[in-house]
Amino acid sequence: MAKQNLNIVLVGAGNVATHLGRAWHKAGVNILQVYSRNHTPASTLARKINATPLSNPAEIDASADAVIFSLRDNSYLNVLEKVDLHDTLLLHTSGSLDMGILSAASNRIGVIYPLQTFNKHKILDLSQTPFLLEAGSDADMPMIEKLAALITGNIVHISSEQRATLHVSAVFSCNFVNYLYTIAEDLLKEKNLDLDLIRPLILETAQKVMTESPSEVQTGPAKRNDTKIITKHLESLYNNPEYRELYKNLTEKIIHRNKESFKNDKL
Amino acid sequence: MAKQNLNIVLVGAGNVATHLGRAWHKAGVNILQVYSRNHTPASTLARKINATPLSNPAEIDASADAVIFSLRDNSYLNVLEKVDLHDTLLLHTSGSLDMGILSAASNRIGVIYPLQTFNKHKILDLSQTPFLLEAGSDADMPMIEKLAALITGNIVHISSEQRATLHVSAVFSCNFVNYLYTIAEDLLKEKNLDLDLIRPLILETAQKVMTESPSEVQTGPAKRNDTKIITKHLESLYNNPEYRELYKNLTEKIIHRNKESFKNDKL
Repeated sequence: MAKQNLNIVLVGAGNVATHLGRAWHKAGVNILQVYSRNHTPASTLARKINATPLSNPAEIDASADAVIFSLRDNSYLNVLEKVDLHDTLLLHTSGSLDMGILSAASNRIGVIYPLQTFNKHKILDLSQTPFLLEAGSDADMPMIEKLAALITGNIVHISSEQRATLHVSAVFSCNFVNYLYTIAEDLLKEKNLDLDLIRPLILETAQKVMTESPSEVQTGPAKRNDTKIITKHLESLYNNPEYRELYKNLTEKIIHRNKESFKNDKL
Repeated sequence: MAKQNLNIVLVGAGNVATHLGRAWHKAGVNILQVYSRNHTPASTLARKINATPLSNPAEIDASADAVIFSLRDNSYLNVLEKVDLHDTLLLHTSGSLDMGILSAASNRIGVIYPLQTFNKHKILDLSQTPFLLEAGSDADMPMIEKLAALITGNIVHISSEQRATLHVSAVFSCNFVNYLYTIAEDLLKEKNLDLDLIRPLILETAQKVMTESPSEVQTGPAKRNDTKIITKHLESLYNNPEYRELYKNLTEKIIHRNKESFKNDKL
């Protein structure tokens, strides 16, 4: 893409910084610097996107159009207290942090939160990923929108409170879901069965809710309250007490939920 | 597709029977009859696939190449005691039932279990779906394979015991996963947020494990043991005690699992 007349600095060199840095670099944004507490990740990422690695946050270039923080939530205050960028636009990319945390280091603050799951080694197409934006001042929103629009066609304005709700929902529908996949993999491995056997099921389960409401497409023994199968499954999990307990817990919740909706249907 | 010289009977008219019936009909199989305890579902399905609806299982045509049972697990014995088809090949499509249950009504038995999630109103492409086959006698396997191959390119031979493990794994990675999607939808609704915001995340979470092992791509606050976010999330779920308890439970399990693997890494 054509060179953009935009200069940014990345603070952090983890999964999110890597994906966003690559995407902005590809879109022609000039990435001046990459800061990371540790030298190796900073220089690895900096090399890929033609930036200068930094190990001292005090050296961040205050003339940048935006400085984008993608750190672990725990590390923000530690880095912010070492910088003084009071006229520079600071953005963070976190689903859970209030925008206000950045006011420790600047008067111009905002959020650019890509709602997606990132692993360093997988190239992702972010063009459909929702980017959730927030700005401390209306005057800074156009710059945040410009940066987001270089990566995605899916821009949404939300408050810190709504973002927090989205983040909890993302934990349920992504992190916890992946953990359930892990359990399935464990159970199959014990019997020398390959995960390939249930991969089409995993994909269809996700694809089904792309157009439908999850509550309307629930299937399975718990949904049907099929006590015979449920008992058999619990017996088969005898050697996995943790998974057994979780099976029981989730099954009870699904049965309860469907009883409730059955009652409502009758009203 | 060309007319097959194959005659079958379907016992049951639910989601599985409907999808398989449509697929075999499309592949040129002659579906003689559809039995269901209730007239309406039998005649609805029978009309679609050019079959005769039956309400009395004693009238099942014993000359069929195979009679395929897709019932609720609880209903099998009830129907089987009403039929005498001792020389006819009987197959069931259940993930959890032993093949042996069919020997109540015939000497020729087998299983043809499509490992997928079915809803009546969504047309599914079953050409990649694993069909898990089992036969009481080697002599009957070619017929079971022939029927499966008319629908899928993914045929697997497994035992009843392995099939039971696959079925429990499917409950975790499909039914329980969909329930987690439902929770996310509930949380978003409370704040007037649309599920569309996390649909790309849901899809990517599933797509990621198409090529990777779920245990290797786990992400999120629990994986990082990010106590600050976890505490915040638990606080935000204060008004949803059931979801709060589940969040806590799953988070503890993920933390524990990652501690274990960390310990192993050090060995």
